[in-house]
Amino acid sequence: MANQVTKCKAAVAWEAGKPLSIEEVEVAPPKAHEVLIKIMATAVCHTDAYTLSGADPEGSFPVILGHEGAGIVESVGEGVTKLKAGDTVIPLYIPQCGECKFCLNPKTNLCQKIRERILHYMGTSTFSEYTVVADISVAKIDRLAPLDKVCLLGCGISTGYGAALNTGKVEPGSTCAVFGLGGVGLATIMGCKVAGASRIIGVDINKDKFSRAKEFGDSECINPQDFSKPIQEVLIEMTDGGVDYSFECIGNVKVMRAALEACHKGWGVSVIAGVAASGEEIAIRPFQLVTGRVWKGTAFGGWKSVESVPKLVSEYMSRRIKVDEFVTHSLSFDQINEAFDLLYARKSIQTVVKQL
Amino acid sequence: MANQVTKCKAAVAWEAGKPLSIEEVEVAPPKAHEVLIKIMATAVCHTDAYTLSGADPEGSFPVILGHEGAGIVESVGEGVTKLKAGDTVIPLYIPQCGECKFCLNPKTNLCQKIRERILHYMGTSTFSEYTVVADISVAKIDRLAPLDKVCLLGCGISTGYGAALNTGKVEPGSTCAVFGLGGVGLATIMGCKVAGASRIIGVDINKDKFSRAKEFGDSECINPQDFSKPIQEVLIEMTDGGVDYSFECIGNVKVMRAALEACHKGWGVSVIAGVAASGEEIAIRPFQLVTGRVWKGTAFGGWKSVESVPKLVSEYMSRRIKVDEFVTHSLSFDQINEAFDLLYARKSIQTVVKQL
Ligand SMILES: [Zn+2]
Ligand SMILES: [Zn+2]
Ligand SMILES: [Zn+2]
Ligand SMILES: [Zn+2]
Repeated sequence: MANQVTKCKAAVAWEAGKPLSIEEVEVAPPKAHEVLIKIMATAVCHTDAYTLSGADPEGSFPVILGHEGAGIVESVGEGVTKLKAGDTVIPLYIPQCGECKFCLNPKTNLCQKIRERILHYMGTSTFSEYTVVADISVAKIDRLAPLDKVCLLGCGISTGYGAALNTGKVEPGSTCAVFGLGGVGLATIMGCKVAGASRIIGVDINKDKFSRAKEFGDSECINPQDFSKPIQEVLIEMTDGGVDYSFECIGNVKVMRAALEACHKGWGVSVIAGVAASGEEIAIRPFQLVTGRVWKGTAFGGWKSVESVPKLVSEYMSRRIKVDEFVTHSLSFDQINEAFDLLYARKSIQTVVKQL
Repeated sequence: MANQVTKCKAAVAWEAGKPLSIEEVEVAPPKAHEVLIKIMATAVCHTDAYTLSGADPEGSFPVILGHEGAGIVESVGEGVTKLKAGDTVIPLYIPQCGECKFCLNPKTNLCQKIRERILHYMGTSTFSEYTVVADISVAKIDRLAPLDKVCLLGCGISTGYGAALNTGKVEPGSTCAVFGLGGVGLATIMGCKVAGASRIIGVDINKDKFSRAKEFGDSECINPQDFSKPIQEVLIEMTDGGVDYSFECIGNVKVMRAALEACHKGWGVSVIAGVAASGEEIAIRPFQLVTGRVWKGTAFGGWKSVESVPKLVSEYMSRRIKVDEFVTHSLSFDQINEAFDLLYARKSIQTVVKQL
């Protein structure tokens, strides 16, 4: 069984800008230190859409996209000791080998162990019924977890939640601003709330997102288009000098600058959680930093993936963090292109696509 | 006595780009919460030269420059309780009122209590035989301290030393790069050394500075002009991925970018200690921050001034930190324009000007 090729359905991106094509593919059996996973549910993220658009210079086609998934281990390759068939898992786009200098350093989660050589998307390729991933890129989670929900912990929710807790290190009683009220922004708000922030200001040009943001913990929401002055000046006035923590959850370099400038002199920390388009740059006057503001960024919320994702699943199971509330749409795998349409139309927060 | 005008000599900057003119001026007696100080020694700093050049849009003329001084309290105004005539002091360009929200926050030293209304340079105007400053802008120091040395603790040495200890928070065993081997750079090296850094790499285009930098603790020095590739790439190769901490001690926005990019992915911290010209901006790809680098800046090394400067003087008196070694030239007050000439010619690290 472990040596057989698995035939299954996958959503293949043959070229940039075209819809995915659902067709039969052959998945090779797991080699040494690899794991074959039956994907039960996957979500569609802006990063998938960015790659599919062709704008990512590192993107190559054909490719099976997808990096927010959850499933069951089907079989494991030689040398895999911590996982076995039947385990409930989330594939991880940042591995945790536990041995490299990054894994050994508590300050970072960016494991640099080289990934498998399979032509894979972000090491995961979850837009497939079956996928093979490296064993250091798999988190074993609670077998009772609903896979069509916890698949979201493979990317955006964990990124925003960790941006507040791990990267920003939000302190109790502080004032925060969250720029962009999509999935990552909502998760950031949730993190600020868990950290004990006393005031969380949401910023978005789409006021339809304000009511959901308030359900997640925003104390108030503002729309930059309602003001004649730059939004950083508005925030500085609202907060008597600026916010203690700001988070950019969009990927817009101009907003990144505004988020830094909205920080309080002396101690304000600004965290970039959004992903800018390739080649774009951020700029500020160095005086902003010399007068005490700090500029940071986060990838996967700073979580060391293999050890942290199971804990995040537990936090969800014990209702400490929300996950269900991020899911605005649920579709079958055959409808995966509709998930992209919802994303382009900005109608969804997260669309989950389920295998039957 | 306290109500009389004091006539004394001062070096007056009448207009941009012209030498200072030594002439008699009248110093008003100290008003409430003010202190009249007899300045015994003062140093000339790049910031004085920048203002004198006319390039600083906030500079106004005529003005008495100077902000690195040391002297003796001559008299105090009403309500001054912590200082008295005869005290040995260093005037401070960042006050510490002890009451504002900045003073009450351990994360910053940028006291925002409004300074006196006297037309003063950086709240100090040390290029004068006598000067009046706010009582919250005076550090009382060891009366045995040599004033023609510890005047340097009023600016550059404290800035660099604190950039390493307070802002960068350099850890034992770490690798550091210091860009610019002038006074602030040498003090930064000293701070990295005290913090236990195991490798300190100096970077300067003037190799004549290398031997002094090594005396201060540099393990090696490199000249960007000796390489055909960008200096950040050279440093990344030399250090197997980048330095743990980098410090920009020049005020050049291109070097600030190089210093950030020379940092190690995942945890590298870059601190801006140099002062860029007004209006200039720094730029990077946000990917640099998202992959774990942190960008910060420092003003007066993060030291809360009134409480810290006396401790720095004590560290010097107990030979924990160097000060004498920064003084390359010593002149009389009448020769103050020569101190500027030495600075323009890049011949001096620090020139101290003494009152007779
Ligand atoms: Zn690793
Ligand atoms: Zn994603
Ligand atoms: Zn100075
Ligand atoms: Zn204060």
